[in-house]
Amino acid sequence: MLNRNKLREILMKYQMGMPRNDVGQTVGKFDKDRDPKASTILKSPNEKLVVENIEDTNNVVKAVELIGRRTPIEYFTYNEEDFKYIKPKEHTDYSKLDIFHRAISPILIVGQCFSLLPVLGVGHPNPRHLHFSFKSIPVLITLIFLIASSSLNLATMKYLAKIGVNAKNLVGVVFFTCVQSSTILFFALAPRWPRLIRYWTRTEMIFVRKPYEMPKRHLSSRVRRAAFAIIILSATEHMLYLISAVISQYRKASFCASVNNETYHFTFNDFTYKNYDYVFEVYPNTKFVGGLILVINFFCTFVWNFMDIFIMMVGKGIAYRFEQIKMRINKLLDKIPEAVFMDIRDHYIKLIELLEYVDEDLSGIILLSCANNLYFVCYQLLNIFNKLRWPINYVYFWFSLLFLIGRTAFVFLTAASINDEAKDALNVLRRVPATTWCVEVERLIFQMTTSTVALSGKKFYFLTRRLLFGMAGTIVTYELVLLQFDEPNRSKGLPDLCT
Amino acid sequence: MLNRNKLREILMKYQMGMPRNDVGQTVGKFDKDRDPKASTILKSPNEKLVVENIEDTNNVVKAVELIGRRTPIEYFTYNEEDFKYIKPKEHTDYSKLDIFHRAISPILIVGQCFSLLPVLGVGHPNPRHLHFSFKSIPVLITLIFLIASSSLNLATMKYLAKIGVNAKNLVGVVFFTCVQSSTILFFALAPRWPRLIRYWTRTEMIFVRKPYEMPKRHLSSRVRRAAFAIIILSATEHMLYLISAVISQYRKASFCASVNNETYHFTFNDFTYKNYDYVFEVYPNTKFVGGLILVINFFCTFVWNFMDIFIMMVGKGIAYRFEQIKMRINKLLDKIPEAVFMDIRDHYIKLIELLEYVDEDLSGIILLSCANNLYFVCYQLLNIFNKLRWPINYVYFWFSLLFLIGRTAFVFLTAASINDEAKDALNVLRRVPATTWCVEVERLIFQMTTSTVALSGKKFYFLTRRLLFGMAGTIVTYELVLLQFDEPNRSKGLPDLCT
Amino acid sequence: MLNRNKLREILMKYQMGMPRNDVGQTVGKFDKDRDPKASTILKSPNEKLVVENIEDTNNVVKAVELIGRRTPIEYFTYNEEDFKYIKPKEHTDYSKLDIFHRAISPILIVGQCFSLLPVLGVGHPNPRHLHFSFKSIPVLITLIFLIASSSLNLATMKYLAKIGVNAKNLVGVVFFTCVQSSTILFFALAPRWPRLIRYWTRTEMIFVRKPYEMPKRHLSSRVRRAAFAIIILSATEHMLYLISAVISQYRKASFCASVNNETYHFTFNDFTYKNYDYVFEVYPNTKFVGGLILVINFFCTFVWNFMDIFIMMVGKGIAYRFEQIKMRINKLLDKIPEAVFMDIRDHYIKLIELLEYVDEDLSGIILLSCANNLYFVCYQLLNIFNKLRWPINYVYFWFSLLFLIGRTAFVFLTAASINDEAKDALNVLRRVPATTWCVEVERLIFQMTTSTVALSGKKFYFLTRRLLFGMAGTIVTYELVLLQFDEPNRSKGLPDLCT
Amino acid sequence: MLNRNKLREILMKYQMGMPRNDVGQTVGKFDKDRDPKASTILKSPNEKLVVENIEDTNNVVKAVELIGRRTPIEYFTYNEEDFKYIKPKEHTDYSKLDIFHRAISPILIVGQCFSLLPVLGVGHPNPRHLHFSFKSIPVLITLIFLIASSSLNLATMKYLAKIGVNAKNLVGVVFFTCVQSSTILFFALAPRWPRLIRYWTRTEMIFVRKPYEMPKRHLSSRVRRAAFAIIILSATEHMLYLISAVISQYRKASFCASVNNETYHFTFNDFTYKNYDYVFEVYPNTKFVGGLILVINFFCTFVWNFMDIFIMMVGKGIAYRFEQIKMRINKLLDKIPEAVFMDIRDHYIKLIELLEYVDEDLSGIILLSCANNLYFVCYQLLNIFNKLRWPINYVYFWFSLLFLIGRTAFVFLTAASINDEAKDALNVLRRVPATTWCVEVERLIFQMTTSTVALSGKKFYFLTRRLLFGMAGTIVTYELVLLQFDEPNRSKGLPDLCT
Repeated sequence: MLNRNKLREILMKYQMGMPRNDVGQTVGKFDKDRDPKASTILKSPNEKLVVENIEDTNNVVKAVELIGRRTPIEYFTYNEEDFKYIKPKEHTDYSKLDIFHRAISPILIVGQCFSLLPVLGVGHPNPRHLHFSFKSIPVLITLIFLIASSSLNLATMKYLAKIGVNAKNLVGVVFFTCVQSSTILFFALAPRWPRLIRYWTRTEMIFVRKPYEMPKRHLSSRVRRAAFAIIILSATEHMLYLISAVISQYRKASFCASVNNETYHFTFNDFTYKNYDYVFEVYPNTKFVGGLILVINFFCTFVWNFMDIFIMMVGKGIAYRFEQIKMRINKLLDKIPEAVFMDIRDHYIKLIELLEYVDEDLSGIILLSCANNLYFVCYQLLNIFNKLRWPINYVYFWFSLLFLIGRTAFVFLTAASINDEAKDALNVLRRVPATTWCVEVERLIFQMTTSTVALSGKKFYFLTRRLLFGMAGTIVTYELVLLQFDEPNRSKGLPDLCT
Repeated sequence: MLNRNKLREILMKYQMGMPRNDVGQTVGKFDKDRDPKASTILKSPNEKLVVENIEDTNNVVKAVELIGRRTPIEYFTYNEEDFKYIKPKEHTDYSKLDIFHRAISPILIVGQCFSLLPVLGVGHPNPRHLHFSFKSIPVLITLIFLIASSSLNLATMKYLAKIGVNAKNLVGVVFFTCVQSSTILFFALAPRWPRLIRYWTRTEMIFVRKPYEMPKRHLSSRVRRAAFAIIILSATEHMLYLISAVISQYRKASFCASVNNETYHFTFNDFTYKNYDYVFEVYPNTKFVGGLILVINFFCTFVWNFMDIFIMMVGKGIAYRFEQIKMRINKLLDKIPEAVFMDIRDHYIKLIELLEYVDEDLSGIILLSCANNLYFVCYQLLNIFNKLRWPINYVYFWFSLLFLIGRTAFVFLTAASINDEAKDALNVLRRVPATTWCVEVERLIFQMTTSTVALSGKKFYFLTRRLLFGMAGTIVTYELVLLQFDEPNRSKGLPDLCT
Repeated sequence: MLNRNKLREILMKYQMGMPRNDVGQTVGKFDKDRDPKASTILKSPNEKLVVENIEDTNNVVKAVELIGRRTPIEYFTYNEEDFKYIKPKEHTDYSKLDIFHRAISPILIVGQCFSLLPVLGVGHPNPRHLHFSFKSIPVLITLIFLIASSSLNLATMKYLAKIGVNAKNLVGVVFFTCVQSSTILFFALAPRWPRLIRYWTRTEMIFVRKPYEMPKRHLSSRVRRAAFAIIILSATEHMLYLISAVISQYRKASFCASVNNETYHFTFNDFTYKNYDYVFEVYPNTKFVGGLILVINFFCTFVWNFMDIFIMMVGKGIAYRFEQIKMRINKLLDKIPEAVFMDIRDHYIKLIELLEYVDEDLSGIILLSCANNLYFVCYQLLNIFNKLRWPINYVYFWFSLLFLIGRTAFVFLTAASINDEAKDALNVLRRVPATTWCVEVERLIFQMTTSTVALSGKKFYFLTRRLLFGMAGTIVTYELVLLQFDEPNRSKGLPDLCT
Repeated sequence: MLNRNKLREILMKYQMGMPRNDVGQTVGKFDKDRDPKASTILKSPNEKLVVENIEDTNNVVKAVELIGRRTPIEYFTYNEEDFKYIKPKEHTDYSKLDIFHRAISPILIVGQCFSLLPVLGVGHPNPRHLHFSFKSIPVLITLIFLIASSSLNLATMKYLAKIGVNAKNLVGVVFFTCVQSSTILFFALAPRWPRLIRYWTRTEMIFVRKPYEMPKRHLSSRVRRAAFAIIILSATEHMLYLISAVISQYRKASFCASVNNETYHFTFNDFTYKNYDYVFEVYPNTKFVGGLILVINFFCTFVWNFMDIFIMMVGKGIAYRFEQIKMRINKLLDKIPEAVFMDIRDHYIKLIELLEYVDEDLSGIILLSCANNLYFVCYQLLNIFNKLRWPINYVYFWFSLLFLIGRTAFVFLTAASINDEAKDALNVLRRVPATTWCVEVERLIFQMTTSTVALSGKKFYFLTRRLLFGMAGTIVTYELVLLQFDEPNRSKGLPDLCT
């Protein structure tokens, strides 16, 4: 006789032989391929490794209290205390592990120089040294930058209010507002960052050892190369902007001087004044102020690019782990016992939970970044048919446009790669033969099929490849309507040079 | 030997020990965690609680006959009679329970002062005192308001027919028509309301006791705070409208008087006449009529806002219950026997049925509210680039615009929160470990995955976060086209002040 | 010991007791609730009933050969021969059954008077008397109508080629082309119709007896009432069109005559000539030709409406059966053995197959009807802001517009009701308690969840409620762009009356 | 007692009797209907057949190294080495098999004459003779064509830069750029082609013998007929273009000559000069250059069409195999043991993997083709309302437009037919009766339901029927906006003939 209670009993017993697979306990056993004998031998050294990085300093709790809210995900996420049961003697050497915290630290340090994500301990290998404090230099930098950029933004707004707003001269205010919002969002993220990164590291611990293997190119090199490529390109773009501004200014001045039979001396003051006249209506026209404006502008450009860099890094960081799961499934395909699938499904869910946690904290930035990119791509495309005066203007315009489109597409595709990798794993699972088919595989497949694994903009939309296609269609529609709108301006041609 | 018949037999026997889980009988046993022994002890006191609120007065049947139709959901919903088996001695004290009927009663009472949902007994704690009667004061208020607003609407239409319709001056008629349709929809809802709210209360009885727990903030406080916030903001908006109208009228009159070297006395009659001249072409220009117009206008504004308030309250009311289910699952995650999952699945389905019932009765109002909000957001956005004469006009315009967008987004997101909560529960369920995995969990997960749990506009669309994103894109497209349309008007500038 | 082979064996044995559920054999046993004992008793009388209507005359095969293609669905649909095993003695009295063929016959007869669906035997109760023949009066009517309408269409085209095409005067050609395409599509459907309707009737035989019950309003009355309502409204619309044309013609003529101090006699010739001048450029201006034009025009209007009527009838016919399945499931919910679910799932699949068959043959008509409705709704909406000269013109315009929108929405919603009913059944199934849960229910739920049960336009889109919502959004976008386009024409105002 | 381990043991034993179903081993056993006894007898002859075509020459590896990347699909696809275990004595006669490689070879040979897909051995029946070499005549043709078309493209660009770009004169540059990109994409595909086609042939080997049957029309005839039809139509279109150009040129010249009382001799030089004046601004105006331009133009037109032909062929090639699976399932429906379903599921997955492999390599071409078709359809639709001077211009324009739309729709629908066939198989599976229902069927159904089986444009979108519907809607929107844009040009009318 076999009734349901019986079945459950049997299953229980069967599971007793194996370590139980509930969330609180699995942490220490990812390093073995679920061979029950091996596990007893390897248990102690591995557990140490994981347990160590959990003892949290108190400021995390403080930070959370500071913000006054707990993300919804914490309702059903195991508490930090669950891991504190034993204080291990030896410490993990995080500097040798290929974890996200380590991979992004140089980029974050650069970012902090530009006032972003003011957290202390970013450069330290061990994530438990991360903490947020209001009384710190990064916070100071952030505040100074916010004040400085506000003064520029307000000057621009005042100027606009005077000459009247239209769709085209609005771009400056939009730029500064985006940059400031971005800074504030990163500032708001800072107190939550240590907790997030520790959670992330804990989840990653599963993937840094056997049975998981490293894909050919390491996470660090992937993330850093991409980030530095964007930084260099954005710096180039800013340089071109300055060169274009200087040259067209100089050409114009010398041309007009020669028309009026005057001699002309190109000075720094002249340059800044002509380019930022609206600022100097509010502030005194001195070399110091002029220099300051250039510096702030440079900072703003960096911040404007950093949003995208940040999202791209997070995207790569999570997609990398899904790739590892895919590789593991693929390797074991024919010979997997159900217990291993429990493990894999458990890790898969942990990754999804990490993704949700990250999404919770980042989707403000994602929303801003998408809106920002959409606006600027539309704006720049609108200028394609405009006539420009000097060749260097064309060089700058086309470099800027292509950089913008390229950056947008790259960030989008990187974020979408999370979705791609998660789906790819599904394709592998479909090939599980009937002999190793089991309930756990079925659950895993069902889950992969039905949930959208992707970063989102406040859950309004998910960053997938199909969305990018939809957005491209929308941009074309907008562009066609806007071009028609802008027709009268375009047909006017260039204004007279020396008036 | 184990064949299918056998298996069924065994399962039957197994289920015999537990109370059967069919729809008609479960009502009395939600308060225990399905422990068969505990149930027998707790049975009587609990059953009383539930059973009491079902004895329905006869007017429900009358009301249904009145309307002459039964909602489709009633085909497969258990009859009221099923619950009437025993008349309990003690009565439930509803005033102590955190139920929807109680939560919204103050808002509904305010609404009734403004002619909406003319049902009797709204303020009484016990939902069985709710009933609808044609011979009642609320109905009288509704009828008077309908007549009054009709006369205003007709006057506006007559005026339009005289001067010719265009997209911009249509707005008044659209406003009055929306308000009147809304009043009529609420009036049509009134006879169905008692039955609906009793059904709702019966379903809620499951969630007001153990094992379900209260989320931190109670339903009542959630609903009421949000509703009063909207009411206060809408009142502010209306005040600003009046202030703006008075000031610009006064400024204009005194300016023109000073131009013509006259002295000017600002009177109430002057004000109403200038603002509602189209009405006074039909009605006599007396102080009484002027006052009446202002009062009706105020009523209309309230009704116009109340649609959104109502939808928001319903959204919060249902989402709250889904949140409770989520919390319960989360708490029990590791140790749930299948029987408890049967319970939870049963409750989940009951909630969905409630949602369908509510949707059936409300989707007319939802459709109207969405169309209304869409129209007015488009209309107001179109005016962004218009020049206004006095600063107070700008203050009013921007407050009004932001209030409108904010209200629309808030209502939409609140309604969408039903969908969010229902999906969140799914995320929790995904973490059920292999040991407690059972057919009931599988069914529950499958059901959650595949059905769209949300309020709808007559099933044409579902109020989810993704729809809001789609609508935003659509609004931008419309706006771009409309702006182009409106270009000639905009470039004309302000007309002369004193002509 | 229980291995897979064993399990299969047991299942086989278990199934042996019950009649096997394969497609070829189930036909004769839908009328019992799968009680094995009852089945043996009821077998013979029921089988007769079903078998009788299958003996097909040979012309079906001929007709299929005629068209030279077999619909893809026939690959996997049981052959007609499967049913021919026994020739029953008694005949079924179809005139007493509430089947689709009977329900639509009066409408089809009316349609045939207007040249549509030229099949013989439409009015006969028994569908096996249906056959198509080229040498028949309906075919003759169709050909005459095609020739007559072509001559009108060509005259219109010639006129357009002379005066130049634009978006507005194209409407006549579009109208005639739609009408002619519709006639041709119905003509192409005719040879396939007998086979289709016989297949349909066979499938319906399942639902005309126990355990299925009739919903309150019979299929016949539902279909006929709706169809006649549309026919009457469309006749009214056509009458209004004539009245409007006559009156405005008369008013204009008498006004101009009075201006020129002439007396005016309004003649039939004058009227037709002024209204159809482009036709008289080709044909002689006689009373006979004038009358003919009016008659052809009337026919065209009918054909133009009949497409929608036809789709609506098919929609109601299939939705009705899904409703019956829903009712059956609902009634049995708590006490259904798996065998009954096999039956229900079988019937559900048969209905879906019927739907696919119908969709295969009808989706050309559906595509045309949708395109046609979309075009005319857009066209008429564009005229909303136009000024008209006489009040009767307004009456006609608004009646025509509202009729058009109403008809479109009604047809769409009726077609979408198939989808609604199929989904509703799903909601009922979700409430199957754990005790009666079985593999067949699971399969049925999975199937209902994942397949889109709806009529389609060549599988490009499915007629569901959500599509209607999407189309409404698209129409608004088109309308906004088109209005802008049409602006110059609109602002011109009415031309001079007597020139 | 039955615990999980036991169950697995039993299953193992059960499976032992049957050959194991893992990917590496199944290759040799597709030809039997999984009867274990039959398999031992048929084993050797069949294995030879399959194994033979796998021994690959070394240049494949070289080719892959050449490109420096391995497609992601290769991660989880069995290695070529797996098949090399035995070198069979007899060779397969590929020339008798109805495989894709054979079906497309004549089309590819024609394509190679026009510089596309420069692979050697395309005409050889055995796919292992396919190889790519830089030092080959096809590569030489490709390079020459690239240089020649570049020179034309650059001349066009230079001319445009002189006279100023607008939306209409851009079309030439877009055309040449598309053609060149296409050539480059095919050139990039060439080194990967041998490997792809060998993989394809291996997969196809499953379907060329029992139990799979041939659909009525063979793959070869299907593919070739469709391809040659497009080629002939495109040649006709090009001829019409030339005729139209010559005639309108001649008419104009003779008319103007008669106006000026001159006599006119129409020469080849005159013709080429007038039609390609922008080229002759760069190159000398000789008969040789003129002829060359005409030849290059002809090549470009062919390449422009070939993209679509190629996608169409691939679509037909894969859809054909899905159709075979559908036919097999249908035939066996009532009597399938689980083992056969394992087989079918295995083949289904193999086809999907083939599709993914193909999609990986082709989606660049698909993306380009879709963008290209979308652009040209929009461009040509825009010219519908333009006035043309000579009747031959109308003939050419309408032929060209209809050909373009027809080709686009045909290619799209053919590609979408993969999706249609894959879904159709699902409909068949839904009818599997309860007796033959098993886990493998369930997996197969689940998989078919949840995965989108279709060619894609870099996974941004999938080529399905519904997409075509969406695209049609988008084109209409674009067209409406563009028409409005183009209004001023259109109303200008034709320019004076002789100026």
